[in-house]
Amino acid sequence: MEIDYTNIKVIGFDADDTLWVNETYFRDAELEFAKLLAPYETANKIDQELFKKEIENLPLYGYGIKGFVLSMVEMALELSNGNISNATIGKILEIGKDMLNKPVELLEGVEEVLLTLSKDFRLIVVTKGDLLDQERKLEKSGLLDYFHHIEILSDKQEANYSKLLNHLDIKPSEFLMIGNSLKSDILPLVNIKAQAIHVPFHTTWMHEQVSDNETQDKSYKTVGNLLEIIPLLSRKKRNAMVKND
Amino acid sequence: MEIDYTNIKVIGFDADDTLWVNETYFRDAELEFAKLLAPYETANKIDQELFKKEIENLPLYGYGIKGFVLSMVEMALELSNGNISNATIGKILEIGKDMLNKPVELLEGVEEVLLTLSKDFRLIVVTKGDLLDQERKLEKSGLLDYFHHIEILSDKQEANYSKLLNHLDIKPSEFLMIGNSLKSDILPLVNIKAQAIHVPFHTTWMHEQVSDNETQDKSYKTVGNLLEIIPLLSRKKRNAMVKND
Repeated sequence: MEIDYTNIKVIGFDADDTLWVNETYFRDAELEFAKLLAPYETANKIDQELFKKEIENLPLYGYGIKGFVLSMVEMALELSNGNISNATIGKILEIGKDMLNKPVELLEGVEEVLLTLSKDFRLIVVTKGDLLDQERKLEKSGLLDYFHHIEILSDKQEANYSKLLNHLDIKPSEFLMIGNSLKSDILPLVNIKAQAIHVPFHTTWMHEQVSDNETQDKSYKTVGNLLEIIPLLSRKKRNAMVKND
Repeated sequence: MEIDYTNIKVIGFDADDTLWVNETYFRDAELEFAKLLAPYETANKIDQELFKKEIENLPLYGYGIKGFVLSMVEMALELSNGNISNATIGKILEIGKDMLNKPVELLEGVEEVLLTLSKDFRLIVVTKGDLLDQERKLEKSGLLDYFHHIEILSDKQEANYSKLLNHLDIKPSEFLMIGNSLKSDILPLVNIKAQAIHVPFHTTWMHEQVSDNETQDKSYKTVGNLLEIIPLLSRKKRNAMVKND
């Protein structure tokens, strides 16, 4: 299906796993956590229980590393039946601090894509999670100058995006979102009649996964790599030039 | 000293301990924490060490309840020399969850002040801390309709405020900030030549305290109660009317 991007004025980029590596660090942390809890349960069970605990705590803690660490501590108390050592609790806190201190590792093509698209579009970042942590990553990324606006949301549902477009004073049809999560970056946009391009990352948090029938008949494009977006959107320019002739 | 508020267009309200009770809950949590750690140290020492730990972790965790809880867990491991019980760790996590679940308790006069001032000024909330927690409190407060804009900052320093005024497209002289913290709500504003009114709360976190010589020769007003702001600012209206005659 050919999608027409001629009306697009503003492009929103998701940050975690779209501009830079993130989910990989959570996967690594989960593996470390499973090792620490290995005396009490199988890795598989630990993984499942931690996920359940994160989802249970999500309404209270929200997204981000601090809530994840608090859930790990709580899970360690439970899975060990109250027998977890102080040393292990200390190691869980360290996992969290290491995650917060991680350098920002840009994904392939990010700078080229931002440099190219910033010539024709207003670019913004639309990310969710912990305010300080996301600001710090943006700062470390060296990408701040490409963006007109940074929006850090507590969640990425349709209402959050509608509010954002209102604030940006643009119509849904003038907004294109680019991100790795079907649930957070693509479907809510398609549902409010904005555009979206899906750039999958090799790892997706279970909470962000959607079933096939949720994506059926939804109009969005999937590309294998951020760089594939450039020709899609430069077509916009060509179309506009033809129209203006 | 008479301060002239005739140019003010936008009024920013701090939230915690200006619109609603907050610090009191932290004080209560610290008391509970000191009780839990009583087998290991004096209440005074526990208090001092917890404060040090919070400040040490502030650059990494930022403001808010989740970072506070992580600091309490870390402190419990340290103060007990690795002998803290799993039950106590569990209770520390519960302190945090209780704090996040607290109802919002509006301070005296808040609704009257917002109702009155919203007729003549654009009101915004300028708060720092955890994004989800602050959004939740605003939602629970029932005050959202009074505000044109909600700004949740990771910190409240001069640069954060300058960026905000830029974003609001107003001059510093057109902005008045109202809040309980000299360090976060008053001095940075005075330093960038905006206006500020200090409404002290009965409890101030040690980190927010400033020395007398920091406030010397600074031009801001202190009132004993939010309601005292109304007559100060209705003078603005009268002045404007005289000018227009």
